[in-house]
Amino acid sequence: MQNFTLHTPTKILFGEGQIAALADQIPADARILITYGGGSIKKNGVFDQVINALKGRNVVEFSGIEPNPTYETLMKAVEIVRKENIDFLLAVGGGSVADGTKFIAAAVNYKAAEDPWHILQTWGAHVESAIPLGVVLTLPATGSESNSGAVITRKSTGDKQAFMNPLVCPRFAVLDPVVTYTLPERQIANGVVDAFVHTVEQYLTYPVDAKVQDRFAEGLLLTLIEEGPRALKEQHNYNVRANVMWSATMALNGLIGAGVPQDWSTHMLGHEITAMHGLDHAQTLAIVLPAMLNERRVQKREKLLQYAERVWNLRDGSDDQRIDGAIAATRAFFEQMGVPTRLSDYQLDGSSIPALVAKLEEHGMTALGENKDITLDISKRVYEAAR
Amino acid sequence: MQNFTLHTPTKILFGEGQIAALADQIPADARILITYGGGSIKKNGVFDQVINALKGRNVVEFSGIEPNPTYETLMKAVEIVRKENIDFLLAVGGGSVADGTKFIAAAVNYKAAEDPWHILQTWGAHVESAIPLGVVLTLPATGSESNSGAVITRKSTGDKQAFMNPLVCPRFAVLDPVVTYTLPERQIANGVVDAFVHTVEQYLTYPVDAKVQDRFAEGLLLTLIEEGPRALKEQHNYNVRANVMWSATMALNGLIGAGVPQDWSTHMLGHEITAMHGLDHAQTLAIVLPAMLNERRVQKREKLLQYAERVWNLRDGSDDQRIDGAIAATRAFFEQMGVPTRLSDYQLDGSSIPALVAKLEEHGMTALGENKDITLDISKRVYEAAR
Repeated sequence: MQNFTLHTPTKILFGEGQIAALADQIPADARILITYGGGSIKKNGVFDQVINALKGRNVVEFSGIEPNPTYETLMKAVEIVRKENIDFLLAVGGGSVADGTKFIAAAVNYKAAEDPWHILQTWGAHVESAIPLGVVLTLPATGSESNSGAVITRKSTGDKQAFMNPLVCPRFAVLDPVVTYTLPERQIANGVVDAFVHTVEQYLTYPVDAKVQDRFAEGLLLTLIEEGPRALKEQHNYNVRANVMWSATMALNGLIGAGVPQDWSTHMLGHEITAMHGLDHAQTLAIVLPAMLNERRVQKREKLLQYAERVWNLRDGSDDQRIDGAIAATRAFFEQMGVPTRLSDYQLDGSSIPALVAKLEEHGMTALGENKDITLDISKRVYEAAR
Repeated sequence: MQNFTLHTPTKILFGEGQIAALADQIPADARILITYGGGSIKKNGVFDQVINALKGRNVVEFSGIEPNPTYETLMKAVEIVRKENIDFLLAVGGGSVADGTKFIAAAVNYKAAEDPWHILQTWGAHVESAIPLGVVLTLPATGSESNSGAVITRKSTGDKQAFMNPLVCPRFAVLDPVVTYTLPERQIANGVVDAFVHTVEQYLTYPVDAKVQDRFAEGLLLTLIEEGPRALKEQHNYNVRANVMWSATMALNGLIGAGVPQDWSTHMLGHEITAMHGLDHAQTLAIVLPAMLNERRVQKREKLLQYAERVWNLRDGSDDQRIDGAIAATRAFFEQMGVPTRLSDYQLDGSSIPALVAKLEEHGMTALGENKDITLDISKRVYEAAR
């Protein structure tokens, strides 16, 4: 096992009706900015629940945070925070709203550069203060509700980049599975795929004899495989939604990645596809992951075999056959969730692959993976294999 | 899944050499009281590592916290904290030192009653402030290093009682598996049994379709079953010790118990045996658990069958045979760890059972278990079955 520091300070309030407990989590005299996306929370009742819970408090609203939150939009919120002397941010939405709100929190008093885009250019290393924030989660997927990371897109340049800083870790997150009942199927499917890939990226590397982390990761994968398809079919099954929601949070709060190697290359290659072609984040992961696992089958051999056995119950055939089987099962699972796994399924013919690789290079993604040996050439092969 | 609130704010520093990172976790101007037990940390080098890490800081020592920490001893530390204006407590030791230090932290400024024993009489409900504390863990077992609970014994009356309050949750915990190399076998064995039983008490109840929690619990049990016996044989196997240490922390930081029913009856019956006869805590758990599982086989039927299959790989025979097999395997595992599972193994003939039951009654333990239906009569049957 590798050395690690693990800090998961976000207080989780989980279950039906927990939005009502919101007020106790925010200082009574706080000036609150509620941030959200396209307004679906006004249709499904979540906004009303939040407003009811915060009756009598100082509340300002900011809407319009995009599915891939943009710097351009978020900077408008930064202006409001400054003008209204906001001292608490409440993100109501999915991972995009949470991510965007983290950027707002960090940008308001950012000192290291005049333009807070610098936060993304330096992976958050120079953030010295942040407005405290909480999250009411409406879409289980990214894990952003209880971690320190965020991914922000700059519309003007097509860049999609990440930053991390413990100061933007939410103080609390409210997870009510009932609020997911009204989500479109596509968002549920995307969330399951996203959580699955997060787990894989902290699990399918090389073995370091970290038995707890391995079994926790396998437990999440098995749960997502069982509950994901049911979540599509059984819209009002509370426990199914609860299991998916809790899996997604556990997949990226730092726990399963503590003390083990990690390989975020699938996310990095996926981000470029979203930035260039506008595909959903999870769609890009479903495209990249099977191709990446196949490309890295030698380096990931031992863990792929463990994955084949413990997650997919593949025990017969040669090592290579079981690895093939596990990769095929992964692909079939994404397809079963309604998320196609080829660039061609999204009417992309691969002609943009050189441009995607150029973007990877521009963003410094020239040595990815748990061994930092996924070069641009290898990334190109992965894109090609995913056509 | 049941509703839950989960807060795990303790920052974990895990791995070889992490004690050196201690100073960054404690405010530079803090007046620190280092609390410890019988002095083994002075022999195995841990004390020196701590002192080195805190060079130049204001440090006072308090030693002599017992394996079952007593109110009488801890109140002496409370006096020192008051006299020396201590504002940070650093527990260096196992669960007993951590527990004792939590009591000190809560007792110093306790206002609800003149005698801080009131904290135990009221389960910590009236604690309104506590001195901040951190833990350098030397013995993986109780999980106390990252939770809000503590068990304290009052020597004069033979009472052993628990309290919980988020204010005494450690700010950080340093877990270096290397410091466990010099532990006596008996303490390693006790720790593994304790962590195993903690996990079982949050797992073997009735199903609520909480798939992540179940699989996390099963992952801990499987890891302890694999690594526990190896920890006894392979004194310097870092990964084995690391896996045991991490399992013990994960077994009782709140995570696996979030959203599921819990049954702490084995601990409650065990506490009375320790208080009356001085057996090690884990010895009492090894005595009580198999008898308790057998007594509750009807109420716990579904989860016992899941436990038999997923943890002990028992798939043949009738339901009752598989349950018998799982209970027998549990008992055999404790015995394999060198922890006998009968009262008679400890030269106790059962004549104190009426007195043990009377103590349970005195402590209000008249309706234990996940359904609050373990009466004194049932507890008596469990003690009798464990003779």
